[in-house]
Amino acid sequence: MSLLSCGNGSSKVTAVTNCFIIKSVISQSRHIMTLSSHKANHSLSYWCVLFQGVGGGWIEAQNSRGEVGLVPEDYIEVREWLGVLSMELASFILYINVLFLLIYWCVCVCVWGVGAEDDEWDDEWDDVKSNSESGDGGAIQRGGATGSSMKISLNKFPGFSKSGPELFLLCKQPPKGKEKITIYMGEVGPVWSYPEAQLDCVVADPKKGTKMYGLKSYIEYHVIPNTTNRPVNHRYKHFDWLYERLLDKFGSAIPIPSLPDKQVTGRFEEEFIKMRMERLQGWMTRMCRHPVVSNSDVFQLFLTYKDEKDWKTGKRKAEKDEDVGVMIFSSIEPEAPDLDPIEVEQKCDQFSRFTKAMDDGVKDLLTVGQEHWKRCTGPLPKEYQRIGKAFQNLSSVFTSSGYQGEATLTDAMTSAGKTYEEIAQMVAEQPRKDLHFLMENNNEYKGLLGCFPDTIGVHKAAIEKVKEGDRLVAASKITPQDKVTMAKRVSTMSYALQAEMNHFHSNRIYDYNRVMQLYLEEQVKFYETIAEKLKQAHSQFTTM
Amino acid sequence: MSLLSCGNGSSKVTAVTNCFIIKSVISQSRHIMTLSSHKANHSLSYWCVLFQGVGGGWIEAQNSRGEVGLVPEDYIEVREWLGVLSMELASFILYINVLFLLIYWCVCVCVWGVGAEDDEWDDEWDDVKSNSESGDGGAIQRGGATGSSMKISLNKFPGFSKSGPELFLLCKQPPKGKEKITIYMGEVGPVWSYPEAQLDCVVADPKKGTKMYGLKSYIEYHVIPNTTNRPVNHRYKHFDWLYERLLDKFGSAIPIPSLPDKQVTGRFEEEFIKMRMERLQGWMTRMCRHPVVSNSDVFQLFLTYKDEKDWKTGKRKAEKDEDVGVMIFSSIEPEAPDLDPIEVEQKCDQFSRFTKAMDDGVKDLLTVGQEHWKRCTGPLPKEYQRIGKAFQNLSSVFTSSGYQGEATLTDAMTSAGKTYEEIAQMVAEQPRKDLHFLMENNNEYKGLLGCFPDTIGVHKAAIEKVKEGDRLVAASKITPQDKVTMAKRVSTMSYALQAEMNHFHSNRIYDYNRVMQLYLEEQVKFYETIAEKLKQAHSQFTTM
Repeated sequence: MSLLSCGNGSSKVTAVTNCFIIKSVISQSRHIMTLSSHKANHSLSYWCVLFQGVGGGWIEAQNSRGEVGLVPEDYIEVREWLGVLSMELASFILYINVLFLLIYWCVCVCVWGVGAEDDEWDDEWDDVKSNSESGDGGAIQRGGATGSSMKISLNKFPGFSKSGPELFLLCKQPPKGKEKITIYMGEVGPVWSYPEAQLDCVVADPKKGTKMYGLKSYIEYHVIPNTTNRPVNHRYKHFDWLYERLLDKFGSAIPIPSLPDKQVTGRFEEEFIKMRMERLQGWMTRMCRHPVVSNSDVFQLFLTYKDEKDWKTGKRKAEKDEDVGVMIFSSIEPEAPDLDPIEVEQKCDQFSRFTKAMDDGVKDLLTVGQEHWKRCTGPLPKEYQRIGKAFQNLSSVFTSSGYQGEATLTDAMTSAGKTYEEIAQMVAEQPRKDLHFLMENNNEYKGLLGCFPDTIGVHKAAIEKVKEGDRLVAASKITPQDKVTMAKRVSTMSYALQAEMNHFHSNRIYDYNRVMQLYLEEQVKFYETIAEKLKQAHSQFTTM
Repeated sequence: MSLLSCGNGSSKVTAVTNCFIIKSVISQSRHIMTLSSHKANHSLSYWCVLFQGVGGGWIEAQNSRGEVGLVPEDYIEVREWLGVLSMELASFILYINVLFLLIYWCVCVCVWGVGAEDDEWDDEWDDVKSNSESGDGGAIQRGGATGSSMKISLNKFPGFSKSGPELFLLCKQPPKGKEKITIYMGEVGPVWSYPEAQLDCVVADPKKGTKMYGLKSYIEYHVIPNTTNRPVNHRYKHFDWLYERLLDKFGSAIPIPSLPDKQVTGRFEEEFIKMRMERLQGWMTRMCRHPVVSNSDVFQLFLTYKDEKDWKTGKRKAEKDEDVGVMIFSSIEPEAPDLDPIEVEQKCDQFSRFTKAMDDGVKDLLTVGQEHWKRCTGPLPKEYQRIGKAFQNLSSVFTSSGYQGEATLTDAMTSAGKTYEEIAQMVAEQPRKDLHFLMENNNEYKGLLGCFPDTIGVHKAAIEKVKEGDRLVAASKITPQDKVTMAKRVSTMSYALQAEMNHFHSNRIYDYNRVMQLYLEEQVKFYETIAEKLKQAHSQFTTM
């Protein structure tokens, strides 16, 4: 197997940046690999990811000429194919697909560098994402339950990969007057600066709206922040736009969980709308709770825009924000002495181990929960129903005996039978009352934990760069002063990671306490109600 | 298909009584058909029952010469092959079987008219039945859960089948001084005469005994009646002897349920001994509760014999009792006007329908209960265990976070996990505490109800005979006075059946009330305990 982009270090990068721009691909594996550069020419190349698990930072891929080889992972953007449809073209594609009788399962076209000017364009696919990146930026990640997308843009530092944390590690001093994100030393270690009043919002009142004289319909939600108490309207695609902005801006430092699953069919069914709203609520609550995210301009815009004009202006501004990717770290100011690189690495490894272990634990609980759900809604209530029927059946046989003084027994048996039928129904309905929330919480955490490998990956890459410092100085790739700056900045990154982990832990402790309380409370009610019903049934029998 | 014993009425009977004696048979269907008569020669014939459901009182059978035909049901004794092994020969057969390497699955030999003189003979097969019939007698039945055996002996009335109720219908006046069984008219209709003090007994203290210098061992139980409070010793085979006596004596009028299952292997295992004792207790309680059975000499002997000599004397006397089979009806004296034969038939049909319907209902409940038992001891506790493990697993992951102030949550999660493990154990153990008794009760009733078709069959046969009255008078087979006597006596039989049904109903109402109370009481405790445990677990979580 040949190395498509051979060499190491800078030569590798140059090779890549000068050679490839992959705009779209029809991929067997439903994944698209994109290599992009501002220097790159705009010829189209089709790449197909063959194998992502090569390891060592390489991916096996095949290009449009059929050549198979390894490509450095860092230079690649891997996306689920549906996710990269540009909104401007998705509608067109939909009709094309219908016209061509779905001959191709997937047609993907990425249009580079053309930002969506507004969202007046409408489509049936509320969930198809706007792909309007502002051209520049560092690493941003997407992780979570619904697949992952890793985008690495390149930067201009000579001697460095144009992806990864180098952009920040060796950047100039941030411009004055820039918004600061302070990290304090709290009881538990580094912590973000938390606002006095906790931002919160309610997602409510889903309403069906139409456009184009009723040809297109969508669901619009009220989002009501506790700061203004004034509802603003948002569609799923607005949430998705916000998600993309937050991922761009904060993804290197803060895990931004995916939005609830995309869904094409049944979008207007009541059950689905309810579930999506509940999950959008969960996502918004988590974002509101995050002191850095909730304080950002784009998030505030989303919650409190005054009118359509305000929204559009803010939208355009957010899309042009250049402080995205790893550059978020340039805004962060820890109020604490620089950390030793060894300690930085130890912390990073610890977080890595913990999040991996918790990911396993959460997935295990989800599997067990799913099986329990199935049993509770399937065979178990059927069995209680059969027990109930058997009692009632025997009761009606007894009624036919013609024997006097039978009524008390037969009434009691019928009543006991009905009680077991009620229990059957209770058993079947119970998971929605308790297990549901336990599952939702763990699903949320599964999504969050899915973001950590990327967040921690940026961190690890930075640590490696710092380790390379001496060699880079010797090779005159960087100055000795650059090396000192890098160490200082990786310390800043570590403070950010620690603050984020502490935020995660504190939320986790709250969330699991809350959801376990809720689960057990409902379980107690459930068993108490059954006991009470059976006590009633019991009281009707007599051996006097 | 030819009629093997062709003709009708008397000619049929003569043909049968003069032609056939079937002593044993190796049968594919594991059933043996025996036709016997005192007049008959002793040549052996092998009969194989092909189909019992022909109806109209006929059974399809094949004799040793390969001839297939219909044989009147009344003349046939159908037994499970193990049940007819005579005790004297069973041991021998056992060894023969071993010697001949079980080439034949079944070797059955009936020895007629040789009563067992005592029970000094011992064998490993506690459960092999003594087959010592006192040569004469009417119909006796055996029914129940463990297979059925119907024995019809013949009588000497010319012009009548020597089986069935004719023996009683046309017998001479019973000798004076004979014990009377009175039937009163109670609130619910005809009822047996109930004693003022209810007889009861306890079966307890199973002890292993040995004979023949330790070569043979058996289990002996204490049986303690509430009348004397003095324990007497009995082995399973004594219970079985009692069962046979009661069946001989009362089986035509009173359903005598089978003893608990025979068992050869594992007879000395604690669990088995406990279960057998529990079931012998249940059987004895039911017999004690029956005013006719409990008042009988043989039952009193069993409960209160003074010493070995007393026991043996009583035993020999009981085995020579000639008042067995349908002749039990001759002791019965209803204190009420004779019933119209049409009413008799209606009652009979009603009882037949009811017992059939209840049999179905009981079997349905047993099936449902068995499945529930399986789920409660199999997959369900495993699932609760996995839920418990998942909580504890997540708790230990949390413990590894290194975050301060985690202990309350992790302790609570571990505790919740352990609670679900405890619930798993409770779920698995619960069926023994409640479902067990519900199942045992229904198993008992299944056994009892299995006796009714035979008991009701005797009754139906008597009704048919009365219907034939005019024809028999015309053919000078009976006198007009005989016909009047028959009608009177079938009325007595009907009173007995009604008294027995009322006894059955009153016991049934008591038993089902009691067992449902017990079941629901334990179910309430079960759910309350779970709720309490979960409440405890709940209290450890906090969102303060």
